Amino acid sequence: MARASATSERPLPTLPLALTQGDPAGIGPELSLRAWQERKERALPAFACIANAEQLARTAERLGWPIPIRECSWEEAPAVFQEALPVIPLAQAADVLPGKPDPVSAAATIASIDRAVAAVRAGQAGAVVTNPIAKSVLYAAGFKHPGHTEYLAHLAAEGGVEPLPVMMLWCEELAVIPVTIHVPLQRVPELLTTKLIVDTARIVAAGLRQQFGIASPRLALSGLNPHAGENGTMGREDEDIVKPAIAQLQAEGIDARGPYPADTMFHARARAGYDAALAMYHDQALIPIKTIAFDEGVNVTLGLPFIRTSPDHGTAFDIAGRGIARPDSLCAALRLAARMAGRRDAAHEAAGQP
Amino acid sequence: MARASATSERPLPTLPLALTQGDPAGIGPELSLRAWQERKERALPAFACIANAEQLARTAERLGWPIPIRECSWEEAPAVFQEALPVIPLAQAADVLPGKPDPVSAAATIASIDRAVAAVRAGQAGAVVTNPIAKSVLYAAGFKHPGHTEYLAHLAAEGGVEPLPVMMLWCEELAVIPVTIHVPLQRVPELLTTKLIVDTARIVAAGLRQQFGIASPRLALSGLNPHAGENGTMGREDEDIVKPAIAQLQAEGIDARGPYPADTMFHARARAGYDAALAMYHDQALIPIKTIAFDEGVNVTLGLPFIRTSPDHGTAFDIAGRGIARPDSLCAALRLAARMAGRRDAAHEAAGQP
Repeated sequence: MARASATSERPLPTLPLALTQGDPAGIGPELSLRAWQERKERALPAFACIANAEQLARTAERLGWPIPIRECSWEEAPAVFQEALPVIPLAQAADVLPGKPDPVSAAATIASIDRAVAAVRAGQAGAVVTNPIAKSVLYAAGFKHPGHTEYLAHLAAEGGVEPLPVMMLWCEELAVIPVTIHVPLQRVPELLTTKLIVDTARIVAAGLRQQFGIASPRLALSGLNPHAGENGTMGREDEDIVKPAIAQLQAEGIDARGPYPADTMFHARARAGYDAALAMYHDQALIPIKTIAFDEGVNVTLGLPFIRTSPDHGTAFDIAGRGIARPDSLCAALRLAARMAGRRDAAHEAAGQP
Repeated sequence: MARASATSERPLPTLPLALTQGDPAGIGPELSLRAWQERKERALPAFACIANAEQLARTAERLGWPIPIRECSWEEAPAVFQEALPVIPLAQAADVLPGKPDPVSAAATIASIDRAVAAVRAGQAGAVVTNPIAKSVLYAAGFKHPGHTEYLAHLAAEGGVEPLPVMMLWCEELAVIPVTIHVPLQRVPELLTTKLIVDTARIVAAGLRQQFGIASPRLALSGLNPHAGENGTMGREDEDIVKPAIAQLQAEGIDARGPYPADTMFHARARAGYDAALAMYHDQALIPIKTIAFDEGVNVTLGLPFIRTSPDHGTAFDIAGRGIARPDSLCAALRLAARMAGRRDAAHEAAGQP
């Protein structure tokens, strides 16, 4: 991801980032507070939390963190950010305790996401950064979507058509996309299709162009089988499914290469040869990035009509409220969102678009 | 693998290591020469090549490397090693060209392995270190064994019973064992059994005790599915196959833990918690170690009645003879073999054995 790293030289966007509250019983509130507190040493861009200010203040008080919190508008947020944690107030609120998830908080959790998307679409915020939610808590309150990202795709629907959201795990050293994700390993071979690989790679290529400023993204695809199947002698899928996908992508002018043996494509010299790697299943993608950057990984959703990043961890109810959760990933998500917004704005400007 | 690293403080063994020639058309000959040439800066223990001295001399000459080569006995090898590359002469020899594999070399390749095993079993050499072979070349000459490691197990058979050899990939930061190896991904769920996991883990535990000097090895087992199956909601194998294996191992007094989500068990903090990780399939094991230590990984065979290490790469016919192959992995394999031999000898001495 060498070329994408160059985005750090770009000016930061002037619009504040929209940070959702996430599940208020998880570590989201304390991470948001701590990120603001460490905004200078961590070189964070301006962001505003969409949350209940009193609830955030109680979290800060419980932790003994003297953090000023101020309700404001999106327009005021960048200036407020210098002195206090800006909060875009939520009407919905439920005071739940850390580590005690409660469906009563679901309405506020969802409203925070809705407001963030509305703000970026209205040009009030530069990007959406989401704190973790717990699907089980939302389901208990009647939430019908398979997950956080699918809900964002639902909000992004136009003319009744939802975009295909693609999860990319990103750190300074590596960007990697699992083509299949949260499915039993046994089901991966049947779920992996040439169409799914092509659709995913197209979205990745477009996302790297539009949001990372990489004119001709280089995509490296892994093989499904060990040694990428050794020419079909160790599993046929790499010959029958992955290679046709690569051929189709190349025919469309996308710089896609592979299939490569997954074990030899993630060391430092190999990583220098591509901008993003597409892996065929969850562990093939997540093992390398979490081995390299366990605390600093960022989850990026490509394919949406707005920028969305999130920390690469869950609600961590087991340690919520203790003030020990590391804000590294949230901070990396905030910094990356700002870089992506800067790249996008520069590209729009160059194209003469608003 | 923090505790195993402590083996470096042990005295090196006085017996030379037996280094096989590997396929003479591959990079083995030039790696052996270069390892000896760089023996001081790379802190290598004494080793002797089981090869044809004239053939090695021609390789050195072609590369323009002024390396003295001397035929000797095992007893003479440690002293010779100070001044020349010691060669235990092979009767069988075939002068093949680098990059031009030829079944005519098979007899010498196999004889070199046979002699190495005979030497360690006779107490003339401290451990077997093998250069890479090409199975297809041996098959063309009538070789009947599935691979290099299986052939070593065959040579190690006692009373007609072959030991189960277990492949461990090792670097200073991580030791990892794939429970299933070179099979299509689709077949992994059916091939993974509680018995296979238990048998593998027993051999790993015994190997770490006997050859790495770790009194109570801590084994971490991965789950097969993403997130280790999330309590059976994302694949049943972790509940039905992996957990019973861990319970059985614990009942036998082996410190086995897991199943852990594979993506979160290979970063530096996680690695500090175990001595070796057992992964359920090839890429789950190979991705993390090759991401961390692409050039310095070593292949260790546990379960044999002698120590065997090898570089973690193949014959590389495509670059053989050009002198550009990196000897890092072979040198790491030599150093590790010496450390393991030192540990084994220290344990024998402590136990009052010869």
